[in-house]
Amino acid sequence: MLYEINEKALKLESEGKKIIRLNLGDPDMATPPEIVEAAYASMKAGKTKYSSSYGELRLRQKIAEVHGVKAENVVITPGSKWAIFSTMFLMLKSGGNVIIPTPYWTAYDLIAKSFGAKVKLLRTEMENGWNVDLEKLEGLIDSETKMIILNNPNNPTSKVMDSKTLDGIVEIANKKGITILSDEVYGAIAFNKTKSILDYGTDSKHILSNGFSKTFTMTGWRIGYVVANKTLIDNITKLNQITFNNVPVFIQDAALKGLELHAQIASNIKAKYKARADIASQKLSAAGFKFTSPDAPFYVFPKRDGLDGTKFTLDLLDRGVAVAPGSSFGEYPEHFRISLTAPDDQIEEGLTKICEAPS
Amino acid sequence: MLYEINEKALKLESEGKKIIRLNLGDPDMATPPEIVEAAYASMKAGKTKYSSSYGELRLRQKIAEVHGVKAENVVITPGSKWAIFSTMFLMLKSGGNVIIPTPYWTAYDLIAKSFGAKVKLLRTEMENGWNVDLEKLEGLIDSETKMIILNNPNNPTSKVMDSKTLDGIVEIANKKGITILSDEVYGAIAFNKTKSILDYGTDSKHILSNGFSKTFTMTGWRIGYVVANKTLIDNITKLNQITFNNVPVFIQDAALKGLELHAQIASNIKAKYKARADIASQKLSAAGFKFTSPDAPFYVFPKRDGLDGTKFTLDLLDRGVAVAPGSSFGEYPEHFRISLTAPDDQIEEGLTKICEAPS
Repeated sequence: MLYEINEKALKLESEGKKIIRLNLGDPDMATPPEIVEAAYASMKAGKTKYSSSYGELRLRQKIAEVHGVKAENVVITPGSKWAIFSTMFLMLKSGGNVIIPTPYWTAYDLIAKSFGAKVKLLRTEMENGWNVDLEKLEGLIDSETKMIILNNPNNPTSKVMDSKTLDGIVEIANKKGITILSDEVYGAIAFNKTKSILDYGTDSKHILSNGFSKTFTMTGWRIGYVVANKTLIDNITKLNQITFNNVPVFIQDAALKGLELHAQIASNIKAKYKARADIASQKLSAAGFKFTSPDAPFYVFPKRDGLDGTKFTLDLLDRGVAVAPGSSFGEYPEHFRISLTAPDDQIEEGLTKICEAPS
Repeated sequence: MLYEINEKALKLESEGKKIIRLNLGDPDMATPPEIVEAAYASMKAGKTKYSSSYGELRLRQKIAEVHGVKAENVVITPGSKWAIFSTMFLMLKSGGNVIIPTPYWTAYDLIAKSFGAKVKLLRTEMENGWNVDLEKLEGLIDSETKMIILNNPNNPTSKVMDSKTLDGIVEIANKKGITILSDEVYGAIAFNKTKSILDYGTDSKHILSNGFSKTFTMTGWRIGYVVANKTLIDNITKLNQITFNNVPVFIQDAALKGLELHAQIASNIKAKYKARADIASQKLSAAGFKFTSPDAPFYVFPKRDGLDGTKFTLDLLDRGVAVAPGSSFGEYPEHFRISLTAPDDQIEEGLTKICEAPS
């Protein structure tokens, strides 16, 4: 439903209808002008040719420095989506299953299904703080399990996994020889400190996927990366060679500029979203919705007992507000996801309409 | 070997060695400044957000106009590579085989193998003008054959398929219910008129893949497209949603500017490459190499009887000239491919070194 809602919202907009778009994690803020100028300078300098499918060495080195790894452990991808698709495709195309805690980002499941890999869902509950139950996890693992996907901080709940739970998951994965793919695309702008999968060492078989979209307001630029062992990096590069070849070099130069301005950009973004999360929490609480307080941008995942989330979402779209139904993230029919990624006045108006909508 | 040679050439360059790069179809000319400025204007106008996985409607409409189809028959891809990968993946991931005439672009084979599809190669010979033998083609088809890939004009031979042969292939494909994927990325700048797969009607199951790289000197921008029936376009869009999401809108705006200036840009490029092809033909002939006269940019695929093309290529790289060995395009060990995509003086110097190299 996530993509259908988006295409429907785009269509309504193209027909001239005003839609408050709280359905995607696409920040309303513009890409910082320094990043745009860096791209333009790079284009004008002729960085418009084919290049290495690993990505530009200077960008890989900078990312390696940020994460305390080597450049050979980094490959540049067109968005973190490709980081995830390519990793899953290479590890699961010849069979096996992947365990994914829910609620979860729709794309993981659709990716697995696109090449016939099996998905085992591990349910977590709002009432239990969205915690992964380690015993349940261990019980789900079988001889065909090749991967566990973590999304930390989580989309749609904006929950940061507590470090003890993460320790437990890593211990189980190591014992069973299973790879963890940790999607940490919201990690750099979390309100609370998150432990990264890379904190468990870089000689492991675990994988980090990350992107520039959220941290640097670069969603539409499509640039992300994988940090992993050299063998996987080499294999992703071979897949890059036969799919898209390389992320445009001028986009890589723009991302490099973003990393150079990291501290300044990230702290602005964090402050902005923390303020929005506080307003949303207050309004939604007052209207009787239940949710866990966001640890990170951009989402709130409220629940109302007995809500038909899909109907609620479609009705709300008719009233000019796009959100995502809970069923897009697993079996959460009573939930829906709000993205706090519109201008402040639109968020206020959107929240008011959400709180007033019949359910 | 194609990608290995390229990575090796990049490495030698990064070590300060001067390499004349005649190994890739990456034009030496800069992207036209109007296209760069269109991208910059688009970025500054905030076209840096997520967008439709179909591509921008205005670009799809313009492409539809060029090819005489509807916008719903067009999807935008990150390069024509993704046009080819996505089409092959969707049609062949669950089994079947694909027939590819050789010599052929390496990527087709690597793509098929990446998800376990079988490839049947159909050999053509320089001595026979690189013509596809229709009887041989029909003999290769079995009940598992789902696709025939044509590359017209061809990489590496720069040969345009004669229209009678193309008629024959289409007739066989229609009779047997097989889809033709026609990669026509060099079509718009061919020296001789080429017949397109779209000339056989748009309600067929045949597919056009195309890109902006060659026609508009936009290789590193990574933008191409598929023209096909609506069902396939919808399915490619769904795959786009879970892999890279969308080509950056500012890149789509740049491509649109290219299409608007099409006549002017394409005629410049054609004239430039025709002159280069003439010089190369003269020099290579004088040195005793055999080849068919190029019908299109950018390649010549010369042969010398008894040549060890791989050894020749590696030796030549040590002498500062990168070309591609014939074995990268099928069983053509006595051939190698020259890309006439460097500045004129480098091409002259490169050709001299090629003609003087021991074989």
